[in-house]
Amino acid sequence: MSEYKLLASVSSPDDVRKLREEQLTQLCEEIREKMIEVVSVNGGHLSPNLGVVELTVALHRSFDFPKDSVVWDVGHQSYTHKLLTGRFGEFDTLRQKDGISGFPKREESAYDDFNTGHSSTSISAAFGIANAKQLSGDNSYTIAVIGDGSLTGGLAFEAVNNAGRYNKNFIVVLNDNKMSISKNVGAIPRYLTTVRIQPWYIRVKNVTVRVLAKIPLIGRLLQAFLRKSKSKMKNLVYKNTLFDCFGFTYFGPIDGHNIEELENAFKVAKKETGPVLLHVVTTKGKGYRPAEDNPGEFHGIGQFDIDSGEPLSSHWGFSAEFGKTMCELAQTDPKICAITAAMAGGTGLSNFSKQFKRNFFDVGIAEEHAVTFGCGLASRGYRPVFAVYSTFLQRAYDQLIHDAALGKNHIVLGIDRAGIVGDDGETHQGVFDVSMLNSIPGSVIYSPTYFEGLRLALKDSIYKQTGLAAVRYPRGGELYKPEGFGSESIDYNTFGNPNVDYLIVTYGRLFSYACRAKEMLEQQGIEVKPINTQTVNFASRFKDVWFFEEGIKNGGIAKNFSDLLALTPFSGNYHIKAINDKFVKQMSVNQALAMLKLDSEGMTCVIKKDIGYEETT
Amino acid sequence: MSEYKLLASVSSPDDVRKLREEQLTQLCEEIREKMIEVVSVNGGHLSPNLGVVELTVALHRSFDFPKDSVVWDVGHQSYTHKLLTGRFGEFDTLRQKDGISGFPKREESAYDDFNTGHSSTSISAAFGIANAKQLSGDNSYTIAVIGDGSLTGGLAFEAVNNAGRYNKNFIVVLNDNKMSISKNVGAIPRYLTTVRIQPWYIRVKNVTVRVLAKIPLIGRLLQAFLRKSKSKMKNLVYKNTLFDCFGFTYFGPIDGHNIEELENAFKVAKKETGPVLLHVVTTKGKGYRPAEDNPGEFHGIGQFDIDSGEPLSSHWGFSAEFGKTMCELAQTDPKICAITAAMAGGTGLSNFSKQFKRNFFDVGIAEEHAVTFGCGLASRGYRPVFAVYSTFLQRAYDQLIHDAALGKNHIVLGIDRAGIVGDDGETHQGVFDVSMLNSIPGSVIYSPTYFEGLRLALKDSIYKQTGLAAVRYPRGGELYKPEGFGSESIDYNTFGNPNVDYLIVTYGRLFSYACRAKEMLEQQGIEVKPINTQTVNFASRFKDVWFFEEGIKNGGIAKNFSDLLALTPFSGNYHIKAINDKFVKQMSVNQALAMLKLDSEGMTCVIKKDIGYEETT
Repeated sequence: MSEYKLLASVSSPDDVRKLREEQLTQLCEEIREKMIEVVSVNGGHLSPNLGVVELTVALHRSFDFPKDSVVWDVGHQSYTHKLLTGRFGEFDTLRQKDGISGFPKREESAYDDFNTGHSSTSISAAFGIANAKQLSGDNSYTIAVIGDGSLTGGLAFEAVNNAGRYNKNFIVVLNDNKMSISKNVGAIPRYLTTVRIQPWYIRVKNVTVRVLAKIPLIGRLLQAFLRKSKSKMKNLVYKNTLFDCFGFTYFGPIDGHNIEELENAFKVAKKETGPVLLHVVTTKGKGYRPAEDNPGEFHGIGQFDIDSGEPLSSHWGFSAEFGKTMCELAQTDPKICAITAAMAGGTGLSNFSKQFKRNFFDVGIAEEHAVTFGCGLASRGYRPVFAVYSTFLQRAYDQLIHDAALGKNHIVLGIDRAGIVGDDGETHQGVFDVSMLNSIPGSVIYSPTYFEGLRLALKDSIYKQTGLAAVRYPRGGELYKPEGFGSESIDYNTFGNPNVDYLIVTYGRLFSYACRAKEMLEQQGIEVKPINTQTVNFASRFKDVWFFEEGIKNGGIAKNFSDLLALTPFSGNYHIKAINDKFVKQMSVNQALAMLKLDSEGMTCVIKKDIGYEETT
Repeated sequence: MSEYKLLASVSSPDDVRKLREEQLTQLCEEIREKMIEVVSVNGGHLSPNLGVVELTVALHRSFDFPKDSVVWDVGHQSYTHKLLTGRFGEFDTLRQKDGISGFPKREESAYDDFNTGHSSTSISAAFGIANAKQLSGDNSYTIAVIGDGSLTGGLAFEAVNNAGRYNKNFIVVLNDNKMSISKNVGAIPRYLTTVRIQPWYIRVKNVTVRVLAKIPLIGRLLQAFLRKSKSKMKNLVYKNTLFDCFGFTYFGPIDGHNIEELENAFKVAKKETGPVLLHVVTTKGKGYRPAEDNPGEFHGIGQFDIDSGEPLSSHWGFSAEFGKTMCELAQTDPKICAITAAMAGGTGLSNFSKQFKRNFFDVGIAEEHAVTFGCGLASRGYRPVFAVYSTFLQRAYDQLIHDAALGKNHIVLGIDRAGIVGDDGETHQGVFDVSMLNSIPGSVIYSPTYFEGLRLALKDSIYKQTGLAAVRYPRGGELYKPEGFGSESIDYNTFGNPNVDYLIVTYGRLFSYACRAKEMLEQQGIEVKPINTQTVNFASRFKDVWFFEEGIKNGGIAKNFSDLLALTPFSGNYHIKAINDKFVKQMSVNQALAMLKLDSEGMTCVIKKDIGYEETT
């Protein structure tokens, strides 16, 4: 069964173009089977990829990549593209250390025109590429494939506004699967719903053409007639769609699982003289029942059982604990609001969204708006908590400075996936948030190690802080907690014997690793910024102090600690181990922390080296 | 003449509502006169404010502020609002130290509902306020006033998409003056042009109502009839405008200089059950001939002569030098592209935009898109230079990480207004860019002191760098250059006697101040990151080293220097003077630098204190 006869024979898009129509169904089946097989073992983005199999096949049959160019928005739907562009053989290494990426990478293939990972960048990038081509007199096509969810991001709109003035060979494929990661919200998705159910003239046209085209003369005359009348017909029926207003010629909706219809639509789009928006309707999770039934859960998933669709492991993590605490707080405080940028599930807010419907705001993939909107709520005395992945918070840097901190609006950030995130790789590492927040005057950062600390920090940031406050916590759950640890404090905890020479200072989950690095005394602060002066005074008594930080070094807390230590009589050596001026590639969290020397073994090794400890063998 | 009889009598919006129609013309005249008078002395935003005089008067007559709320987008058009809300008496202190701000400030007045300064935040913030009101059962109105330029910013679209689901008492006033700061670009402005010339039924309606309403019974019946038929008529004529697609009820275009028409439109808008977009057409610079003729130049302006409209001082600054250098480079290199986010004039690119039309891209107020679009150009071998004010670059932090640095796309940033900017105040200070860029792996930052350094740095960053490279320069022109300085080098310059104990390290314009601080040896690096190791080694020989930095301390270069110094045999004292965990309020650049102890006197004072120097009197 799993021989992938056809798929294995495809070594480039040329081979896809050579296939007969009746072979395409089998090809798509094999592609789906392969993706399910690999993702069930390696984890990955399943339902977005299952949804675009036919669309990708049709693209590769209609265009001449890499002469033509395609930018995949977010890029988590590029698996079929990878399988058809010579990467079938390596596909088993998907998302693994040194393996192929779950996202497009120029380093990986000439068919990957632009690296993506975060949402809503594709139209901007593709428009840049298209302009470069125009300047060089290159007439090839440039295509952006963007989901209806990604279209709610402001960057996408900035690009649409800009691209409306462009002339030709620029095509935006709107992959409308009726979802972001969770169910879509907002006006654009509602608008697309109304469009989706309208009949479309071009579909009729193509059916007619298909039947009549076989009669030699009539076929050609008919096509000429239709070509001429097309723009008039469109004006009559479709003038003033949203995308027409933006200067795009709109075609759609097109059945995204019908390769022939897709190819016909691309043919029409290629002939347009202005920019085209091609509205393709797909089903997220298509072809795998558990994913079709639960596209949200299969959006990004770990290992799972193919037959049942059940995940192989699941545990109570920080996201769930965060969501639970939010519900508990909202139970007694009607001023608590939760905001998410299309990530209710991932950030643990599903229950909150059901229990506290009025106080729950999913604003779409719109991190900038989430912060400024939250500031609006805060300005009227509400208590907004914006739950967001660390890497996506980067989008809202200006709003954090300008609307939260400067505007003195008390907004709380629940920063999920803080630190190394693993297989998603370098575009998704949560290593910039501390440095970013640390540069913002008056901000307060908490980074708990255990659930207890998360609860304390969340309450503290909501009720004791008055400005911009952030609680950050890693992907996954609690790690090692040493016996006799007691309870986690909001300020800092010390663990070990204070009458020694060596001290480790850290925060967040690295505390668990530090505790495991037994030879020395450990200390950890939940409240990261401002740094508790007691901690610094405590540290000043030691001969060697190491600060381990799971984040970028420049702008990080370890450097602040150093400044404060310099104000004490400290005369020892201060060592920083953090992520220094580099990105962290895809590999598991454990592999990454080991590579960075931020796990127990790494810490031990760093410390031994710094103190010149000789291993006695 | 300048007695401001009416205006001086307005102590709150109540007084505006009491005025008879025929008095309003005089009020508006006095407002314009006052604004021109003050801005001609203090500098400020003139043409945006001249354009919204009638609109603001009509708002205050139609709504009950501060019970109702209004958020002014950008906020540089809030002068009339300030004059009508009890701030006429202090208006002479506009933009001065401890004076009233050129932007709305909650600290300043209960009528200022939300602080603004950067573009495109108003709909988000107002929507947050509206939701807070809904949660509290407060039925008052919330209004966002946003320009057509600001509407091209992605944040505004994220908010429009989100707000389309909201129910009532939420009004967006689109102040369509057909311009950003310079001429508007993109699809949205073009769309508005087509809308602007269409006839509108409600205008007809109101004229009719006005005439017939005076006949008692008929007037009332007529109004009832019109109310009923309104939605049907709208559906017939205006279904599928852009804003209808977004779930807003669209009314417009309305003459923004006709108070009666505005008041009528507000009456209609207040009765709508869903969110309303009210399209108001205004003339930027209205009522002052030089500003009407040249709205761009009078957008933000320094002191000028009221009669002629001529600026009282103008000199060749870094922006002009940057633009000139760009033109020189483009002359011989067709791969050079210039990108601006609606700031061609401010960033010195006007000539470039005319001379190299095809290679010039004004993308609208869209900093995120500017970067990702530039990365698209770079990915095809072009050499994009994005000229942007430091404070607005904050918008593109994620794109700089994700698309430029991670994507290995060689984009160059021309960061204008780097450092303290003066009167615009805390929202506009360019003090975060270094810290922000410093956290991004592989980025390179240049910060020249003189024009020569700017030219060198721009060439270096375009031709010698391969990743994300930035050249940053201050507002204004060259400052003090000591005799015998020689020529500016790309790495670092030393000035003074090297055989002393004390060293100042700095970059950018502070070098000029440091040279003036005569007692000591001075050194300055143009290339800020990575730091030249020779500089560090050189510094390690001194007894005391001061690093003065015109930027935020956390994440800044002074800290990096400290790290590197620690690796040398340096045994002296290292002192950092930078902006530490605080925002810098409005005042002149000189006042701010003095307050921060970053000017010559400040440096001298800091150094004397650090070395325990006693003044002999």
